[in-house]
Amino acid sequence: MAIYFDNAATTRIDPIVAEAMLPFLNGSFGNPSAIHSMGRPIRAEIEKARKTIAAKINASPSEIFFTSGGTEANNTALLGCVRDLGVKHIITSNIEHHCILHYVDFLEKHHDVAIHKLSVNKEGRIDYTELNEKLKELDGKTLVSLMHGNNEIGTMIDLNKVSEICKSHDALFHSDTVQTFAHFPLDVQETPLDFISCSAHKFHGPKGIGFLYIHSDHKISPMFYGGAQERNMRAGTENILGIVGLAKATEIAFDSLEEDQKHITGLRNDLKDQLLENFQDIQFNGDCDGESLYTVLNVSFPVSPDKMLLLNLDVSGICASGGSACSSGTDIGSHVLNAIGADPNRTAIRFSFSKFSTRLEVDELIEKLKGML
Amino acid sequence: MAIYFDNAATTRIDPIVAEAMLPFLNGSFGNPSAIHSMGRPIRAEIEKARKTIAAKINASPSEIFFTSGGTEANNTALLGCVRDLGVKHIITSNIEHHCILHYVDFLEKHHDVAIHKLSVNKEGRIDYTELNEKLKELDGKTLVSLMHGNNEIGTMIDLNKVSEICKSHDALFHSDTVQTFAHFPLDVQETPLDFISCSAHKFHGPKGIGFLYIHSDHKISPMFYGGAQERNMRAGTENILGIVGLAKATEIAFDSLEEDQKHITGLRNDLKDQLLENFQDIQFNGDCDGESLYTVLNVSFPVSPDKMLLLNLDVSGICASGGSACSSGTDIGSHVLNAIGADPNRTAIRFSFSKFSTRLEVDELIEKLKGML
Repeated sequence: MAIYFDNAATTRIDPIVAEAMLPFLNGSFGNPSAIHSMGRPIRAEIEKARKTIAAKINASPSEIFFTSGGTEANNTALLGCVRDLGVKHIITSNIEHHCILHYVDFLEKHHDVAIHKLSVNKEGRIDYTELNEKLKELDGKTLVSLMHGNNEIGTMIDLNKVSEICKSHDALFHSDTVQTFAHFPLDVQETPLDFISCSAHKFHGPKGIGFLYIHSDHKISPMFYGGAQERNMRAGTENILGIVGLAKATEIAFDSLEEDQKHITGLRNDLKDQLLENFQDIQFNGDCDGESLYTVLNVSFPVSPDKMLLLNLDVSGICASGGSACSSGTDIGSHVLNAIGADPNRTAIRFSFSKFSTRLEVDELIEKLKGML
Repeated sequence: MAIYFDNAATTRIDPIVAEAMLPFLNGSFGNPSAIHSMGRPIRAEIEKARKTIAAKINASPSEIFFTSGGTEANNTALLGCVRDLGVKHIITSNIEHHCILHYVDFLEKHHDVAIHKLSVNKEGRIDYTELNEKLKELDGKTLVSLMHGNNEIGTMIDLNKVSEICKSHDALFHSDTVQTFAHFPLDVQETPLDFISCSAHKFHGPKGIGFLYIHSDHKISPMFYGGAQERNMRAGTENILGIVGLAKATEIAFDSLEEDQKHITGLRNDLKDQLLENFQDIQFNGDCDGESLYTVLNVSFPVSPDKMLLLNLDVSGICASGGSACSSGTDIGSHVLNAIGADPNRTAIRFSFSKFSTRLEVDELIEKLKGML
């Protein structure tokens, strides 16, 4: 069994989540839109799931819309803002996930909206003053879309601060919370946001399911048209297996948030310490001592990329990642590492942890690295 | 356990399909875009699934794109035709699924395309001469989008005939095959089509997964933007559980196509015969003796809708449907029954069967109906 340090790419389905999904794999199968005795329990289960999720972030169930994942959620929010809420400007950053960056490119090309990208410093931080100035300068309804925690280097924005800045300029605020939902507490009453997105497989739920939170003030039109599912916001027979898994994963994650955070932070710090102790000239991309995902440690090794350190780790049974999984099939380097000016002559490897990661695995990684560096 | 005659709405997951999905619920979980040892087997599984499906319809694997279901597949095809293939006219019918009808409304409103709806006769059949005339009359690239088998009344179009008509006018042809894929043989080399759509839960696969077939001649742009998944045609981490279930359900269905068709046709005819024998003035909506889905029998009972026959059946443990499940939550009557001029003073009930339906269940339905009619 490989040692899995690629949890920012995807996580193992929690056995408790799998168990909750099983009845819907074996026997419970009605169409939730059917009004008969085989459909009603499925509808009830979906609404129960919606309630469970909403409760964990102090939202109303009617603000939660199930989607096929984070990409659909993020795309839908952005499209809705431009198409339905009169947004003429989108301020985002150059280290967002491709489902934001490529989608704003699409929007700029096909819709009447201007895109403004904030640059980031070498830690991957935006400049809040620059955001404020930009908002002051722009005419017309503006959406700010900034990811809560960066998937490659872990750097986090201050959600409260951005929320306040947006409010003071009457701008909308969307945050891609795919890496932070169910990893950090969130209260959407205390931290007002207009849209957030979520993907279940980032916290031990199944792939192919997520949700979009839409503040009740807003009414946007859907990406798909068809049946009246999700109160006309998302047509298509609901993915009941996915929804049940998402809700159970959310419940478990929030219920053990502090405990998991402590465990994972411990492992991450341990890896950091052991790397610094055992090897020369180790650096870290991002701001791992500041506000950062506790699940991610992006290590910059003093090794030329042509040494194929990641491949050698894989051969030794260690799964980690160079950039984000979503772009690892492509040849171009990481846009995030480029944006922070990471040295292209060093090798960046993202180690990312989950509650299932262990100290023994960290020790084994260090041993393997000793044979490679 | 209720008697389930609502298989056109959704079907039970086949236990063999569930078994094939289990390893991906329990343990096998890497991100298919990750290039390490936990990602590669998942990528391989996805490509194996694509190959399995393509082989069954004599397509190339590169023509199969996984989606979150039939709605996304249908919407994507239509959008692509208008946005990327220069389509200026869409010819469709007034008995299509809402994911076509509502989406062409959207396209007409937001894009430069005109929509032309063919009417149908009392059996739900389009007039092929009218289609031909319409194509002759229209200037500019045209897409014909006609469902293969109607989900409410079962009436089928002649795919070969429509394919030929489209070819002779250089029109594109999209068919919503959600009710017929894996129920009827299909060879896309023998019956050239430009796009077809599929939803796994209509043939004992899971909900939330389907595919869009796109003929290799066409290059359309995606609905979502983000990662490079599905060769840049559908961003978002792949729903591996769903994809494995879809492929297994496809394999099983095609392997026992004739056998299942024979069994289900037998049940449907049996119900038809027993209804005619036991009750007065039974009629059938659609064309159940002509080219029709063998899975669907839409019965017109000489009973006022306010007698709530469907509800009474439900109370007696029989699950059937009035219209399509996707619109059963809404108050408006069935657009399909309206289109064929069904008598609004009679009660239409759709009974729909699967390979798991039994003769005993049909007999029990007849017994229950005897107490109600």
